[in-house]
Amino acid sequence: MTTSASKSPTIGVFDSGFGGLTVLRALLPLIPAAHYLYLGDTARLPYGSKSRETIARYAVESARFLADHGADLLVIACNTATALAMPEIRAAVSIPVIGVIEPAVEMAHLGRQHSEVLVLATQATTQSHAYLEACARRNLRAVEKACPLLVPLVEEGWVDHPVTRDVLRIYLSEALQDCAPSAVLLGCTHYPLISGAIEQTLRLLGSQATIIDSAHSTARMTAMHFGQSSVGTVTTVTTTNATFECYATDSVEKFARLGSQFLGQPIPHVHLLDLGG
Amino acid sequence: MTTSASKSPTIGVFDSGFGGLTVLRALLPLIPAAHYLYLGDTARLPYGSKSRETIARYAVESARFLADHGADLLVIACNTATALAMPEIRAAVSIPVIGVIEPAVEMAHLGRQHSEVLVLATQATTQSHAYLEACARRNLRAVEKACPLLVPLVEEGWVDHPVTRDVLRIYLSEALQDCAPSAVLLGCTHYPLISGAIEQTLRLLGSQATIIDSAHSTARMTAMHFGQSSVGTVTTVTTTNATFECYATDSVEKFARLGSQFLGQPIPHVHLLDLGG
Repeated sequence: MTTSASKSPTIGVFDSGFGGLTVLRALLPLIPAAHYLYLGDTARLPYGSKSRETIARYAVESARFLADHGADLLVIACNTATALAMPEIRAAVSIPVIGVIEPAVEMAHLGRQHSEVLVLATQATTQSHAYLEACARRNLRAVEKACPLLVPLVEEGWVDHPVTRDVLRIYLSEALQDCAPSAVLLGCTHYPLISGAIEQTLRLLGSQATIIDSAHSTARMTAMHFGQSSVGTVTTVTTTNATFECYATDSVEKFARLGSQFLGQPIPHVHLLDLGG
Repeated sequence: MTTSASKSPTIGVFDSGFGGLTVLRALLPLIPAAHYLYLGDTARLPYGSKSRETIARYAVESARFLADHGADLLVIACNTATALAMPEIRAAVSIPVIGVIEPAVEMAHLGRQHSEVLVLATQATTQSHAYLEACARRNLRAVEKACPLLVPLVEEGWVDHPVTRDVLRIYLSEALQDCAPSAVLLGCTHYPLISGAIEQTLRLLGSQATIIDSAHSTARMTAMHFGQSSVGTVTTVTTTNATFECYATDSVEKFARLGSQFLGQPIPHVHLLDLGG
């Protein structure tokens, strides 16, 4: 399944919205020679409050689109779709598929065997227990905490705001009643934008847990697939060779505007895509 | 267009999710002899962050379903769909259509001519300026304030919570810098669940504005259409004759569970509906 980097692979990145752009952002410097196709199913976001059947149906349509448009590998940069629809996505396409859960849990496992982790995620992700099961396979005990207000707070732009810190204090206090984690997994691609506030709140509550961001873990596992980089080393390779195209199922103007905050660079053009929804 | 109440009209009520059940709740005692069809397009909620084209496409599909299933009149119990898609909905069906905006603005107009109103709503509703225009037609000056965190807070169940009061204080302080309203319109069907906190916050900030709830205004206008009740009188008619069926495009269990909080009574059965999205 390994593709030579010299072939300039095309990597498809899929999310329900903008959050997966944090994964694309982590991929660009790690695999700079690749071409990226990013699809945000913004007409039907958020997935986090929807049922398994609906999420699987939506995710499969997007996965097929990316595979049909030349992707050599698919990154499911959406925790909810990874948690609830990986078997359906893998069955629907014939290219390798990497989700965001296994890389983050593997990162937590490295050097922290048999300890406890806390997973912060959307309601659909926590209810699926996908993180719990991935942790159990590595003898990690996981406590999953649904944090439904964090995505709206990030989307409101309140990333450094007293209300966000209050909400984090409430969520994290509740979670820390049930565990003393050595790692906290950010199980939603919006959460890296408030990782600073999450870390500060953990310290205030007396926890020294390390924060593990699924965007970086997933980018590293994808790079390993292509024989580049390795876990634990953050490269600072220039991104000048990497090219990307973005597709969105709703307003392309909004995607370009909000998405650039997640990607950390301007998005010059977004294609409008009708998946029939 | 007036239908005799003795014919037991069928009234279709449409919303993107659960919020429109506050309109159904207000309708049941006002038109107790009717049969109600409620459709929540939960697979594609929320509409508030989506584009006009996408909202219109979704709303028209739902409106057609209700018209095809025997509705004599359609209540668009969704502010976003009313604000952005009324012309498309009216063109798609041959039955009368009542939205939530005109009734609320008419209620604000009664006795308060030429004064100022503050409209609290989702981002899509405020950006459409549908309330502003409906107010301008009645010589009411309107200030529209987007409150994107209120729906997630209500859905988190934080209806009487310090964080919700903090968020309201921030939103209302910002809004009151631009106006001194005599009425505050709740331009989203989730907001009646926190009308108590909204009123308390207004008083704390020195405003004596009256709160106008579009659910009640819309139910009253619908009752007037059927020749029942009148604006300004809240009837306490028994609801024992009223029957309703609920349709949802995503998890029917979740609809029954969360929806009952909005409807104020149990929802015994929900039909799963595939609109092809």
